[in-house]
Amino acid sequence: MSLGTLLGILVGIILFLQAIFLSTDQYGSFLHIPSLIMVIGGTIAATFIAYNERYALQALKAVISIFSKTKVDQNILLADVEKIISWGEIVNKGGIRELENKWDEKEYDNPVIKFAMEMVFMGEKSETIYKETENLVETMYDRKMISVEVLDTMSSFAPSFGMIGTLVGLVILLNDMSDPAALGAGMSIALITTLYGVLFQNLLFKPAARKIEQKNGMYKFQDMLLVEGITMLPDKKHPIIIQNHLNSFLDPASHFDVAGGG
Amino acid sequence: MSLGTLLGILVGIILFLQAIFLSTDQYGSFLHIPSLIMVIGGTIAATFIAYNERYALQALKAVISIFSKTKVDQNILLADVEKIISWGEIVNKGGIRELENKWDEKEYDNPVIKFAMEMVFMGEKSETIYKETENLVETMYDRKMISVEVLDTMSSFAPSFGMIGTLVGLVILLNDMSDPAALGAGMSIALITTLYGVLFQNLLFKPAARKIEQKNGMYKFQDMLLVEGITMLPDKKHPIIIQNHLNSFLDPASHFDVAGGG
Amino acid sequence: MSLGTLLGILVGIILFLQAIFLSTDQYGSFLHIPSLIMVIGGTIAATFIAYNERYALQALKAVISIFSKTKVDQNILLADVEKIISWGEIVNKGGIRELENKWDEKEYDNPVIKFAMEMVFMGEKSETIYKETENLVETMYDRKMISVEVLDTMSSFAPSFGMIGTLVGLVILLNDMSDPAALGAGMSIALITTLYGVLFQNLLFKPAARKIEQKNGMYKFQDMLLVEGITMLPDKKHPIIIQNHLNSFLDPASHFDVAGGG
Amino acid sequence: MSLGTLLGILVGIILFLQAIFLSTDQYGSFLHIPSLIMVIGGTIAATFIAYNERYALQALKAVISIFSKTKVDQNILLADVEKIISWGEIVNKGGIRELENKWDEKEYDNPVIKFAMEMVFMGEKSETIYKETENLVETMYDRKMISVEVLDTMSSFAPSFGMIGTLVGLVILLNDMSDPAALGAGMSIALITTLYGVLFQNLLFKPAARKIEQKNGMYKFQDMLLVEGITMLPDKKHPIIIQNHLNSFLDPASHFDVAGGG
Amino acid sequence: MSLGTLLGILVGIILFLQAIFLSTDQYGSFLHIPSLIMVIGGTIAATFIAYNERYALQALKAVISIFSKTKVDQNILLADVEKIISWGEIVNKGGIRELENKWDEKEYDNPVIKFAMEMVFMGEKSETIYKETENLVETMYDRKMISVEVLDTMSSFAPSFGMIGTLVGLVILLNDMSDPAALGAGMSIALITTLYGVLFQNLLFKPAARKIEQKNGMYKFQDMLLVEGITMLPDKKHPIIIQNHLNSFLDPASHFDVAGGG
Repeated sequence: MSLGTLLGILVGIILFLQAIFLSTDQYGSFLHIPSLIMVIGGTIAATFIAYNERYALQALKAVISIFSKTKVDQNILLADVEKIISWGEIVNKGGIRELENKWDEKEYDNPVIKFAMEMVFMGEKSETIYKETENLVETMYDRKMISVEVLDTMSSFAPSFGMIGTLVGLVILLNDMSDPAALGAGMSIALITTLYGVLFQNLLFKPAARKIEQKNGMYKFQDMLLVEGITMLPDKKHPIIIQNHLNSFLDPASHFDVAGGG
Repeated sequence: MSLGTLLGILVGIILFLQAIFLSTDQYGSFLHIPSLIMVIGGTIAATFIAYNERYALQALKAVISIFSKTKVDQNILLADVEKIISWGEIVNKGGIRELENKWDEKEYDNPVIKFAMEMVFMGEKSETIYKETENLVETMYDRKMISVEVLDTMSSFAPSFGMIGTLVGLVILLNDMSDPAALGAGMSIALITTLYGVLFQNLLFKPAARKIEQKNGMYKFQDMLLVEGITMLPDKKHPIIIQNHLNSFLDPASHFDVAGGG
Repeated sequence: MSLGTLLGILVGIILFLQAIFLSTDQYGSFLHIPSLIMVIGGTIAATFIAYNERYALQALKAVISIFSKTKVDQNILLADVEKIISWGEIVNKGGIRELENKWDEKEYDNPVIKFAMEMVFMGEKSETIYKETENLVETMYDRKMISVEVLDTMSSFAPSFGMIGTLVGLVILLNDMSDPAALGAGMSIALITTLYGVLFQNLLFKPAARKIEQKNGMYKFQDMLLVEGITMLPDKKHPIIIQNHLNSFLDPASHFDVAGGG
Repeated sequence: MSLGTLLGILVGIILFLQAIFLSTDQYGSFLHIPSLIMVIGGTIAATFIAYNERYALQALKAVISIFSKTKVDQNILLADVEKIISWGEIVNKGGIRELENKWDEKEYDNPVIKFAMEMVFMGEKSETIYKETENLVETMYDRKMISVEVLDTMSSFAPSFGMIGTLVGLVILLNDMSDPAALGAGMSIALITTLYGVLFQNLLFKPAARKIEQKNGMYKFQDMLLVEGITMLPDKKHPIIIQNHLNSFLDPASHFDVAGGG
Repeated sequence: MSLGTLLGILVGIILFLQAIFLSTDQYGSFLHIPSLIMVIGGTIAATFIAYNERYALQALKAVISIFSKTKVDQNILLADVEKIISWGEIVNKGGIRELENKWDEKEYDNPVIKFAMEMVFMGEKSETIYKETENLVETMYDRKMISVEVLDTMSSFAPSFGMIGTLVGLVILLNDMSDPAALGAGMSIALITTLYGVLFQNLLFKPAARKIEQKNGMYKFQDMLLVEGITMLPDKKHPIIIQNHLNSFLDPASHFDVAGGG
């Protein structure tokens, strides 16, 4: 559970409601279902025109994923480095076969490890393994980044459909000004769609796009770290060399030190 | 038939009409032919100044294509991979000649396959074939992406001509305010062009540009997958190597496994 | 004569005038010379501050060039390919000298052909010729693209100076509201500059920038096709190889086939 | 202490206050706590949805760092160059061992120097050291640039939440216009959030993002200068060669001249 | 003296003043010192928060430089080419020593020539000289481009502080509408800051940024031309080869022809 995301959304909504409750006792005027349908419906409709059903649905699912904690941090990266260095030690002493004998495929569910190690055990050259696994990581990343593009597009659709709603309201309003007293209330309703559009853009679509972009980036970083390490195995590089190489990807403050054990 | 596109457009239009019908019974005020001509005509006129007739027409045709289903998905990519691996098996056993004998040109209408296999059968080196076919795929993609650029430009012209229409209306209106009662109705009409401009931008030009960009990207991805596979044939790579290489482009969840048959 | 450009501008102007004539009989209010001078003068003044006199004038001349037809299309590219393949046949049989003897410099006015063939006849290596002619094409393209940058900047200046004019009008208007009746007419005049600014942006500067960008791109494409072909001559590549290479730049639907003569 | 930053913020605030005090004696209307909470709270809430807690907090801390002086200038770079050239002289005479003997690790707290020199003393090849330390510098830079991305996003959230506040105010206001006299005061309050949003964007988030981007760039430049110099040590390059190489990164006006001592 | 810049600024100011003088006789309302201080002061304050004092001042000085003529044109580039070809002839006949003997350092004040020739005379390899001098040119260019970034940021600050001023004015105005007659005059003053902001953006900061960007680009182009030429000297390339190489950077219409003397 990502506490930051949850708190962010709760605080955002509370701030918004408090701004209303402090200023008026006619809360009802801020919940206007037809306006809500206009903005959300229009945004989703345009999204389904703009993107394959599969991508549009994938993006909507990705929004839910922003509440779950990213499973990549400095400690997990350090654990990955430690794991790869220990493999390097096995290979350095007993060769690839030794590592293959000790290998338990079920232990690792990361497809990059599985794909790369299969080629290592097949005896492929490290350049080939690097090229193929890097390609795997890149195409996985590209596929996941489509959700970010969809959400960024939705983030630009939302205020546009808010504006469309407001324009519809204004056209109706201005067309018949027989009752000047109703003018204010009419404009008030007309502005609701713009308000909804800007709210959805800034509290939902845009932050979700940024959060997912960031998560994808972190998973790609972890995957590339694994690739960088695993592709040093076939060349039986000394564990210290592996350590130096992998450390160059980490924060200097927490560089792995094989001598000190971490 | 792309269901998502169709539903998107229908829902978008229904939402828009419902917003009108719920709020007023003077539907007529939303259909203003001169305003429609101003916005659509201005957008198309500016497009024909900005782009070659051929490109402008190609973009308008591309808009229609967004209703047709993209013929590239994970299953079709897997079938392509299977096909190429089977060719690899033939070449691995009987050489390029064996494959050439079994080859039936009519079976494949993809110009990339035709162009690449001709060079394979001519005995070209794999690097040359890769360079030439990659170039073919890139230039085909660049040519198709012009439509996306045209539609993105139209997507920025539409609201501008909407604004021009509104400004024209306002200038006329403000110039003669002898009848204050007509002021509202005048502004109502003036705003219609802005409404049309934003609607065309967000329900037509912008989503169409995104959808076509996406389709072009998928076709390019498929073509490059074919190129990656076919260029491994002249070197008589082992089918397992071909499989590993092509799998690195696919979703790990559906990697092709020659042992398991798919 | 580019029909599309001409029609586009005519239709754009007609649409604009029709929108006015349909709605009012006081056409005069739309022709306000001081406003025109403000917008066009301000845009040009800012352009001369922003760019070298030479570049600013070059861009203004380029605007006129959008009415002339681009002399690059699929047929001309095919003719270029045919020409180069025929040179390849001469070189393949009789060597570079044979081609040099048959060469008539006056036949070709394209500076890229002249520059490249001189080096071919001097006996330079194909890599050197490629590097030098590619550089020539790139720097020629960069020089011509300055006009596009100037026009894109003008396209952003025009509505800004429209806005400046409107603000000046509003400041004067609001400062002295002793005659409320004149308020509307005053605002009407104030809005004219904004209208002019948006019109010039969307019917002149922006479309002209796109059209010139496109033309430059097409000439560069043709020049690079010539470079790709000519640099195959020193290595006496077989005409079929030249054909494959040049075809990879063309639309597969119109690939040149030396056997079929085109 | 960065005098420019401090003065900038003080002058910015004074200008803003002076603009108020000169024009009105009702200063109170510019301090509206609920509006302040809406804009700042909304911006921070959206930031915590959009970014990992750790990154969001890191960005807020980075804002404070803009008041501290950057510790990189032409003199410090020259001192670095001098230092590296002196190491080059030691290596040139007595070899890497000589330098290692004289080395006092405590003297340098820059992690790049530590990481690179360790590999130099381990006897790694200069290409390897370059690749690994460049990677270290790049990943350190990328990690620090996240704060800039966060602040740029906040800089776009601030005016949006200002606009949301204003829309909420307008909806309430227009909904009940029973007291026309209160209309002005209501709109005045509604506009306060927009004012706050634009102020925070232009006096806080945007300048802070630029300042931190600039600092990060300068530290990266210094780190890469160290990398460029240190990786010349294993090859025992002549100090003059080192000097030429490092000078090529500096302003010609202050090129280091080993003959003249600086 | 750059005539275009001067005329541009004069014409821009005259157009602006004429627009005022033609429409009103209360010129005074357009000169509002507190508004001017607000916009200019706010822009400069934000700039000093956003950038190092040194860079902010460097940008302000760069603004003055837009009035001076750029000392790079086709003729000067041709003279450079001629100069380098003549050096090539000396080297081709008598070797580097011959050129060194004839060399008079005081003749050339361009730091790139000085830096490159020193390495030529030291006997460095052409690849090394190219790498080092290209690096020198790039870092010189990067340092100068900071002014462009600063001015582009100022160009976005100016209208924002204009808007802040207008909002302050509106808040005060709307808060106290006891005197409706003063409303117009109040809004008139409030709009002045927006007018100033847009004016400074479009007649000063934005054009200055473009002009300086352009100048820097031209100096970089000249410097790289020198680098391309000088680095051919150590290999004793034939003057015709040097001429071909340098011509590939020039407009074909003015290619240097050693036979024809220019």
